[in-house]
Amino acid sequence: MTATIDHCAIVGLGLLGGSIAKAAKSRGVVGRVTAVGRRPEILEQARQDGCVDAWTLDLREGCAEADLVILATPVATIETLLHGVWDAAGDETLITDVGSVKGSVVDAAEKLAARRPLAFVGAHPMAGSEQSGYRASRPDLFNHALVILTPTERTPLWALKRLTEFWERLGARVASIAPEAHDRIVAHVSHLPHLIAYALVDAIAKAPDSTLDFAAQGFKDTTRIAASDPELWREIFTVNRPALLESLAKFRQSLDELEHLLREEKQTALGHALARIQQIRMELQ
Amino acid sequence: MTATIDHCAIVGLGLLGGSIAKAAKSRGVVGRVTAVGRRPEILEQARQDGCVDAWTLDLREGCAEADLVILATPVATIETLLHGVWDAAGDETLITDVGSVKGSVVDAAEKLAARRPLAFVGAHPMAGSEQSGYRASRPDLFNHALVILTPTERTPLWALKRLTEFWERLGARVASIAPEAHDRIVAHVSHLPHLIAYALVDAIAKAPDSTLDFAAQGFKDTTRIAASDPELWREIFTVNRPALLESLAKFRQSLDELEHLLREEKQTALGHALARIQQIRMELQ
Repeated sequence: MTATIDHCAIVGLGLLGGSIAKAAKSRGVVGRVTAVGRRPEILEQARQDGCVDAWTLDLREGCAEADLVILATPVATIETLLHGVWDAAGDETLITDVGSVKGSVVDAAEKLAARRPLAFVGAHPMAGSEQSGYRASRPDLFNHALVILTPTERTPLWALKRLTEFWERLGARVASIAPEAHDRIVAHVSHLPHLIAYALVDAIAKAPDSTLDFAAQGFKDTTRIAASDPELWREIFTVNRPALLESLAKFRQSLDELEHLLREEKQTALGHALARIQQIRMELQ
Repeated sequence: MTATIDHCAIVGLGLLGGSIAKAAKSRGVVGRVTAVGRRPEILEQARQDGCVDAWTLDLREGCAEADLVILATPVATIETLLHGVWDAAGDETLITDVGSVKGSVVDAAEKLAARRPLAFVGAHPMAGSEQSGYRASRPDLFNHALVILTPTERTPLWALKRLTEFWERLGARVASIAPEAHDRIVAHVSHLPHLIAYALVDAIAKAPDSTLDFAAQGFKDTTRIAASDPELWREIFTVNRPALLESLAKFRQSLDELEHLLREEKQTALGHALARIQQIRMELQ
């Protein structure tokens, strides 16, 4: 059994695409890497860095010979590009992506597969950062990170197995769940916290001028992710809107309960609620 | 000018009290330290550690000879203990505290001072941790930390000056603001983020079983402070209730605005809002 990929095309060489290239090359998981992008100076930099063997601005040219095509562009453009990849790729190509919302892209792939049966497996490496872009990419980004694959009943088993091996060889832990369950989960553990962090910074910024000068470590940690790329997060929020709004409703319910206990000075119940929550958070790490 | 304190009494030897003892002793800022507490084994441990010269369970005995008395117990007990300290202390004693809410304790001290004119300056070292207790204390806790002093028009200048020097010699940066302004500010930058973090953990914990398994670094950072001592935070929330409820209203307004833009798919406005907020957060560090 060899899990080595002869030729991998990475479409979009940002934080994730760049880190995949660096990890895959340095660990010998791929033979050849072709990067497809829009900015020649970044692509050429990657070639000089040695994590990319060739680059092109042409999607069709970049994907034509690849065994594995990884769509690593912002989530809003993945679906559009998927159509181009589907036309350009060879019959045996495995196509995947790294978008943080999965339902819609998996749907799109299954519609395309009904026309032409290529293998697609959605993937979401949960290894972001508040930084972005190729310059922030690094070969160890996926070490011990969780990568969620989102196969469906129509996913060929060989494709799921091959992509699982690929990510494991990049150092990641791999879990497989259904696309819709994935979208609900990430709405809870990722998209909602981002939305909350943005709202928290916004609220404090509206306070009198000097308030932010007194921000200590707690505030900084709680709002660190509000420094994340706003365009990326606008897209993620929008693409996963229904699940995010559901998560937000749950959060409001919890916040309402705590506010009620505080407002009504229900000391004992407030103490119990905080103790119960602290226990949950302590178990997390 | 000598800023050295001959004899300092620390009432309550937890994270803050213990760290003050360790910092003050190791930097030669105090001659003698007496600790007043409730648990002999902890107090004796501190004596063996060398950061405390003597200890007692008796508040009156502990404070009688001190030049500086520091109340470092949980915020809900500071006001009660203040009465005992006021009776026990000598005429030249400077009294202070380290509570994270200041309006009520400063009021109480001014009422006591109308009867017997001792010097009191409220203080709030913004150097907490989600850990607590003497065992978590360390001599460098206040290095570069911000300590807010909350003098009023009635505070003697020598007392403000002496306490400022004391904290600066422990490595802290010192700012002075009015007690009410302090309470509004910490409601914004500290108490609100804690309440939000508790609510966020609670909301996610109510999701299906496996959701928390997928929590990545963003969620962990955003909710780290929900691992804080629930009893301490119940007290802080309660003591600073009016300011916290005001902060919470501001947060809800910001959250409502973002939710509205998301729900109505106002892409451009949502993108602008996130970009504006990200800019603010980026400037924070």
